[in-house]
Amino acid sequence: MSLAGRELRSMIDQDGTFILTLDEVEVGDPAGDEIVVRVEAAPINPSDLGLLLGPVDMATLTPHVNGRVGLMGRVPHERLAGVAGRVGRSMPVGNEGAGTVVAAGRDVAHLTGCRVGVIGGGMYADYRRLKARDVIPLPAGVQARDGASMFVNPLTALGFVETARSEGHKAIVHTAAASNLGQMLQKICLADGVPLVNIVRSPQQAELLRAIGATHVLNSKDEGFTDRLREAIAETGATIAFDAIGGGTLGGQIVEAMERAAVGRLSEYNRYGSTEVKQLYIYGGLDTGPTIMNRAGFGFQWSISGWLLFPFLQKAGAEVTGRMRDRVVAELTTTFASNYTRVIGLAEALDPAVLRAYERKGTGEKFLIDPGRD
Amino acid sequence: MSLAGRELRSMIDQDGTFILTLDEVEVGDPAGDEIVVRVEAAPINPSDLGLLLGPVDMATLTPHVNGRVGLMGRVPHERLAGVAGRVGRSMPVGNEGAGTVVAAGRDVAHLTGCRVGVIGGGMYADYRRLKARDVIPLPAGVQARDGASMFVNPLTALGFVETARSEGHKAIVHTAAASNLGQMLQKICLADGVPLVNIVRSPQQAELLRAIGATHVLNSKDEGFTDRLREAIAETGATIAFDAIGGGTLGGQIVEAMERAAVGRLSEYNRYGSTEVKQLYIYGGLDTGPTIMNRAGFGFQWSISGWLLFPFLQKAGAEVTGRMRDRVVAELTTTFASNYTRVIGLAEALDPAVLRAYERKGTGEKFLIDPGRD
Repeated sequence: MSLAGRELRSMIDQDGTFILTLDEVEVGDPAGDEIVVRVEAAPINPSDLGLLLGPVDMATLTPHVNGRVGLMGRVPHERLAGVAGRVGRSMPVGNEGAGTVVAAGRDVAHLTGCRVGVIGGGMYADYRRLKARDVIPLPAGVQARDGASMFVNPLTALGFVETARSEGHKAIVHTAAASNLGQMLQKICLADGVPLVNIVRSPQQAELLRAIGATHVLNSKDEGFTDRLREAIAETGATIAFDAIGGGTLGGQIVEAMERAAVGRLSEYNRYGSTEVKQLYIYGGLDTGPTIMNRAGFGFQWSISGWLLFPFLQKAGAEVTGRMRDRVVAELTTTFASNYTRVIGLAEALDPAVLRAYERKGTGEKFLIDPGRD
Repeated sequence: MSLAGRELRSMIDQDGTFILTLDEVEVGDPAGDEIVVRVEAAPINPSDLGLLLGPVDMATLTPHVNGRVGLMGRVPHERLAGVAGRVGRSMPVGNEGAGTVVAAGRDVAHLTGCRVGVIGGGMYADYRRLKARDVIPLPAGVQARDGASMFVNPLTALGFVETARSEGHKAIVHTAAASNLGQMLQKICLADGVPLVNIVRSPQQAELLRAIGATHVLNSKDEGFTDRLREAIAETGATIAFDAIGGGTLGGQIVEAMERAAVGRLSEYNRYGSTEVKQLYIYGGLDTGPTIMNRAGFGFQWSISGWLLFPFLQKAGAEVTGRMRDRVVAELTTTFASNYTRVIGLAEALDPAVLRAYERKGTGEKFLIDPGRD
């Protein structure tokens, strides 16, 4: 009497046909160490969109796949090589979520009926069977929507602070700083006494961050932004930045401002620039255009690198990640509270208009999938 | 009875006036642990040009400074902030060189008459007083011109291989690879069994490298360069590159080729790309324009950083650097032989036509200053 339910699947064919469907799948009986979770909430994170949509041309999406609920589109030929590894394979989507355990294997029977937070992929579904070790039981009274985003954003925000500490930096710069993630980071930095320079793109975003206690908030669209960035970086001594944008010149501007401040701290002239390492981590791609680095003001002690949660967690080791998870559970509805601007059902996620809305990745906009809605 | 001699000095005033002069200076008597070296050969390295010329506008150079031998020019106002630390200070120039010890302090009297290689700045001069520990006695019979470049290029080339090893890479990519430095690197890699992918810009440069045993030589101007770069990187397994160019898209193309090869080595699809770290080090600025990184093909495990010899040596520690120096002395006229295309005197270095010639930094062109020539 195995359960069956819908599962959102993304697929790219060899000829570049992109297909998004809701498939009816058998969940399968849980093994001894497995559970079956009824998914009640799963966020759409920017990190989910890569797998969900691939490099599809958004303009080509049409709402039919052989009569089933689904979407079809085209991946331009020149982008196919970049996703060769997934071509022809139907991929389940959804990094994380929360729900209730409706079946459990012999060794973990005590979890039946528990509400849990889950990381492990394939969460855009009615049911998800997985190892019990990949879930965290939620404290009593916590709703599924409050536990749905307890992994990616909280661990990323904590990971930034851990990275900064372990590499010897004393203050941090963050771009696209008014996001859910950015708000978490600001709360952590306030609690931990780490100065944080927030860069946003509107007065509303600046106000939002100030309301939770941010002291350094810069709007990159303001006149005089470059000067104020230099001041804030000199004042805080920030030598590490986390950048969600990726494209354009902002990252380089940050490195240059750091170098300028570091040169100001030198006791004697060094023709190669400062001796402090300036580190920019690019962890997102809100701007998928090229990164432009005007190195003239960088000196030679700089590094621009990709930052990704899972390799960070592996490198950090069990003790550090255990401590991070405990903190997330303890502060789930305070530091790590997520705000959702819209709740949609599984079928709605395939509606072209809805899809375009969550694909825009607007700061402050956040979608939650509740499979129970349809 | 202290010696006096000429010393090349570079100075930038607060109003942006750039002045290059030959000053007559007293050398001063050596302290107990010091020596005075009569400079017989000092190379003009790309790394000397930054201090020598600063950000002067080359078009403004005129050959007069109050009747003395010298050059005058203008630093554009917007470039002054970048060199604030040296404004108003007369800077001696010339990282390294070789010559004969003509005076020595009590504790190092045995060095008198020795020919030595020197690192320590201020080598574009008739004489240089410095600590005995900053010189290396040359083996008997070695000419000054053979010892003049025994520090910067040899230690940089060895430093590349040390860096690659210590960071776990098994093959290297090098740009502007036909330079003196690039030839040294190829010889080291052959001796040490490290696969090296050389990128050059002309058939002549490719031929030069093949003549010393290079097997992977790519001309970036050839049609099909991108495909051949991908092949060479996949074949060697290179995941680290050292780039002398800096500006433009070549560095990013290398990272993308590395990611493509690394994805090919994955046993299963990873939506975030490969799990191998791809490292590009920018150690020069032959192209001072912006670095353009098209990150779409990078994955997330990449890093682009500045690389500079002196911080590397400090980090590497005494044992590693001692081993490196010993190897340079042992292989001074083989692995670490430098070729000079032109020898000039101190006064000639201030001739605008000569200066423009060495400022061009053409691969294969290399100037040596011999103060004894005037």
